[in-house]
Amino acid sequence: MKIIVIGATGTIGRAVFQELNPRHEVIAAGYSHGDIQVDISDMQSIEAMYQQVKNIDAVVLATGQVHFGKLADMTEKEYAIGLNNKLMGQVNVVLAGMKYLNDRGSFTLTSGILSRDPIQYGSSASMVNAAIDAFVKSAALELPRSLRINSVSPTVITESMEDYAAYFRGFESVAAARAALAYSKSVEGLQTGQVYWVG
Amino acid sequence: MKIIVIGATGTIGRAVFQELNPRHEVIAAGYSHGDIQVDISDMQSIEAMYQQVKNIDAVVLATGQVHFGKLADMTEKEYAIGLNNKLMGQVNVVLAGMKYLNDRGSFTLTSGILSRDPIQYGSSASMVNAAIDAFVKSAALELPRSLRINSVSPTVITESMEDYAAYFRGFESVAAARAALAYSKSVEGLQTGQVYWVG
Repeated sequence: MKIIVIGATGTIGRAVFQELNPRHEVIAAGYSHGDIQVDISDMQSIEAMYQQVKNIDAVVLATGQVHFGKLADMTEKEYAIGLNNKLMGQVNVVLAGMKYLNDRGSFTLTSGILSRDPIQYGSSASMVNAAIDAFVKSAALELPRSLRINSVSPTVITESMEDYAAYFRGFESVAAARAALAYSKSVEGLQTGQVYWVG
Repeated sequence: MKIIVIGATGTIGRAVFQELNPRHEVIAAGYSHGDIQVDISDMQSIEAMYQQVKNIDAVVLATGQVHFGKLADMTEKEYAIGLNNKLMGQVNVVLAGMKYLNDRGSFTLTSGILSRDPIQYGSSASMVNAAIDAFVKSAALELPRSLRINSVSPTVITESMEDYAAYFRGFESVAAARAALAYSKSVEGLQTGQVYWVG
């Protein structure tokens, strides 16, 4: 298969790349790194990516910004970061990609555990992650040409605990390599409309 | 209690008004109807509402626009309708209202069944409804002064079936008066961070 991994130099993206690369042709995409550059918050940049890479079987999204902050201080603009980037960025990659992917191709999005296990400062992440999972369940009904779509919803990643441990006390972390298996299941399996909880 | 019902002339809002009005001072708010006008997609309009009505114990939101359309035809702008209005409109009423509501006051938001039971043309509604429910669960952790927040997630309303039946085949509808009980439970009970499924 020919697979684009967007966010391939991030903590999860690197592990997904390593999991899939031995068996497939994997193209690393990123905002500033990788084989090809793409800004998922910009539809023109997404279209440019699809016009550059032909014959795609799968797109994995392991990227997306969200603002963390105290609820009482959060502004409309700070919520817009997560809505425009992590949520609509991933959705736009699907909307544009529907035209380009090979029949039976797949999209794999990334959400996260905060949708159902909320923490302080995480109201935007909770909102965005839940929206991604619900979009996936709904979009799976309507995708043409047997295209598939799933999301991976990991708990906090072990490799990120150095930065995030204070916010995730009591959460059992998961190694990025283990989270990567869920992406492999989504890309290499046949399921659609699924949320793969990893934790 | 003094309660603002935003969207009080809609199908659900009218029923909520009728349920709460015999026991409380209920102020009907709406985009163009009611005792007081408010555009929930405009933070200045929301602030103006809170400055006009003093001593508020509860805010009920029974309003919010979402675009329905075929996935393959949906645009970023059409998703933005639901994100800016039904999702962030309700969130903004909470963010602004945190400063104004009386101690132990409550917010009750409206989501809907499509978050977990998707239909054709409903990808934006699925996304937005799930985001609202997750926001409520997260925001409940951080609200100050014992303020509370819940959402009501109804299935299709019987009174709306005339317009929507074709999209909701096989869904059991619920009368608006029965959905209104969930709003009463949220406003008059003590629970917080809950999603009340009505269906």
